[in-house]
Amino acid sequence: MIGTLGTAPLPQSEIQGRLDRLLGEVQEASGQQVGYPTNQNFDYSALMPFLEYSLNNVGDPFHASNYKSNSHAFEREVIKRFAGLLRIAPEEAWGYVTSGGTEGNMYGLYLARELFPNAIFYFSEETHYSVLKNVRVLNARYIMIKRQQNGEIDYDDLYDMVRVHRDVPAVIMATIGTTMRGGVDDIERIRAMLSDLAVTNSYIHADAALSGMILPFVDDPQPFGFDAGVDSVSVSGHKLIGAPLPCGVVLTKRAYVERVGRAIELVGVQDTTLSGSRSAMGPLMMWYAFARYGNEGFRKLVTGMLDTAEYAVGQFNERGIPAWRHRNSVTVVFPRPPDDVIRKWQMAPEGDIAHIITMPHVTRPMIDELVADCAV
Amino acid sequence: MIGTLGTAPLPQSEIQGRLDRLLGEVQEASGQQVGYPTNQNFDYSALMPFLEYSLNNVGDPFHASNYKSNSHAFEREVIKRFAGLLRIAPEEAWGYVTSGGTEGNMYGLYLARELFPNAIFYFSEETHYSVLKNVRVLNARYIMIKRQQNGEIDYDDLYDMVRVHRDVPAVIMATIGTTMRGGVDDIERIRAMLSDLAVTNSYIHADAALSGMILPFVDDPQPFGFDAGVDSVSVSGHKLIGAPLPCGVVLTKRAYVERVGRAIELVGVQDTTLSGSRSAMGPLMMWYAFARYGNEGFRKLVTGMLDTAEYAVGQFNERGIPAWRHRNSVTVVFPRPPDDVIRKWQMAPEGDIAHIITMPHVTRPMIDELVADCAV
Repeated sequence: MIGTLGTAPLPQSEIQGRLDRLLGEVQEASGQQVGYPTNQNFDYSALMPFLEYSLNNVGDPFHASNYKSNSHAFEREVIKRFAGLLRIAPEEAWGYVTSGGTEGNMYGLYLARELFPNAIFYFSEETHYSVLKNVRVLNARYIMIKRQQNGEIDYDDLYDMVRVHRDVPAVIMATIGTTMRGGVDDIERIRAMLSDLAVTNSYIHADAALSGMILPFVDDPQPFGFDAGVDSVSVSGHKLIGAPLPCGVVLTKRAYVERVGRAIELVGVQDTTLSGSRSAMGPLMMWYAFARYGNEGFRKLVTGMLDTAEYAVGQFNERGIPAWRHRNSVTVVFPRPPDDVIRKWQMAPEGDIAHIITMPHVTRPMIDELVADCAV
Repeated sequence: MIGTLGTAPLPQSEIQGRLDRLLGEVQEASGQQVGYPTNQNFDYSALMPFLEYSLNNVGDPFHASNYKSNSHAFEREVIKRFAGLLRIAPEEAWGYVTSGGTEGNMYGLYLARELFPNAIFYFSEETHYSVLKNVRVLNARYIMIKRQQNGEIDYDDLYDMVRVHRDVPAVIMATIGTTMRGGVDDIERIRAMLSDLAVTNSYIHADAALSGMILPFVDDPQPFGFDAGVDSVSVSGHKLIGAPLPCGVVLTKRAYVERVGRAIELVGVQDTTLSGSRSAMGPLMMWYAFARYGNEGFRKLVTGMLDTAEYAVGQFNERGIPAWRHRNSVTVVFPRPPDDVIRKWQMAPEGDIAHIITMPHVTRPMIDELVADCAV
């Protein structure tokens, strides 16, 4: 192939040719992207000057760092904003900007295992596949719980399993908006179950990758925050907020983290994050989005997305396609269409269902075209 | 403070004011940065157009993905280039671009634990602090080995410990260029020891964060690659290559990974990476650097860095300061200077020593000034 890397430098024209071709492919793909929860509407051109420097947010954003080229101050403000959205007092919260939702989930589960080394981890079969991988990395004992048809965890099955293992701490991995069906595990109900069974050594981590930026902005949210009983939450930055680089945030209680931290001299910080070197751009991008939108901006964005989702359900149903969605969900589920439709719209099917996610860049004309494709 | 995030949007002027101030701080800090192994000389302006799109390299770069906006093709070429540099046949190699050195080390150790679940992990006390954290996350049994004064692992201590535990698989975490002293653990000697003790169930992971991009370009390298007996290697991208975002590469043997992979339908790929969503920019930046420099470009860069390091040792010594460095190392070690010098030059001291790392942006006038500061 022309322009692949060898030991010699490539001519500038070949380099540019390769980049131009990729950019064209990306531009084309972006217009037909309805299957993933990534908001494609963003403009971070104001941040481009930072890409001329080697920034690095290594270490705890709440500690001083010897590596001066960092955006820790912005990161702390982002964490504080999320504390407000996720309903925990800022002074009780601790968190950092991650490289994406998976790292945030890993962090929450790691913290849980450090607090309760012998715990059993419970999560539903609807949970994102990365959680099984995380639990495996942690070498933790786990029980996979059945899901309901709508994507929520099967509470009866969870109750039974926890009841049988009442002598062991319970770590529950709940999902606030499952990837496939947008199901929201009921945190308050899970808390009540744990209380009913007198399992006091328990921990709930919530994967709120997408809905963690939706529920704070609707009038009648399902329980989702620290007030509902979660101990840690992971939210993605490149999903609803939108970003060219994967990023996210993990939030937990400061008191938990203090037990796990380990002072290290090398970077003059406490090593409380999972990553080591961390991008300074993720925090800057999220900060910039919050600074520009404010709560009202996000509320408008979310309202528009929910309207589009409702429109999509209506259009599908009118054509006789049994599409549905959860309350406060932008994930519209419908029977799996033919493979060419899957490919055209970059959908991620599972078994006999598929979904679209009405992110801000998904327009009604796009939905009309998709529905027509599915109705053929 | 003016301009911190609240629930309302910030005025555009305050947003720009905050960003301008940070940029000024970063520009100032970059000029005095001699203590960290991050090359500040790079220009990725050709890649900026990609930051208008939501790219994502989720999943295995060697499998097709439903998420079309990715740079997997470039990532595969980067992996292939590293296979050449790290001396493994491309068809036997597997790897991916990570979010930094720590993820690469975590991946290598995770793979080792999956292959040898009951192994004891051995690493020297000179090893980067993140490894202890990694091993803790993995819930693995470990023995910390003494270091020699020069930063290399204490081979006698390692031999003794492995000998005592000959009945258990041994995972050795070696460092090719330690963070603090630039020490290179002798892979061939470690292999010979394992062989001598008939410990056949063994695995060597190498943290070659910085020196993994130095040793391939010198005439008389210490043993560092797959030909010397490593089973996996982690190299940083934002260190010698230089990048505004942390990134790196992990390389291992394809046969190992195939045992660990788990097919998942969601993203149409095999979930062989640790991260989930992954940046498409890291691969593009590394690809671009290789395309522009070629092997000869990197050889020149490395030669220049080593010359500067030798110059620094000479200047320190002339002033009576006992500075020293390892062969093929750009890490110059000397007695810890006063705190104001540490701060001014952003050094990361440890106990009674400090170091500078002569990355390409570190000039002789900077060294002259630093040596004068230290000699006061």
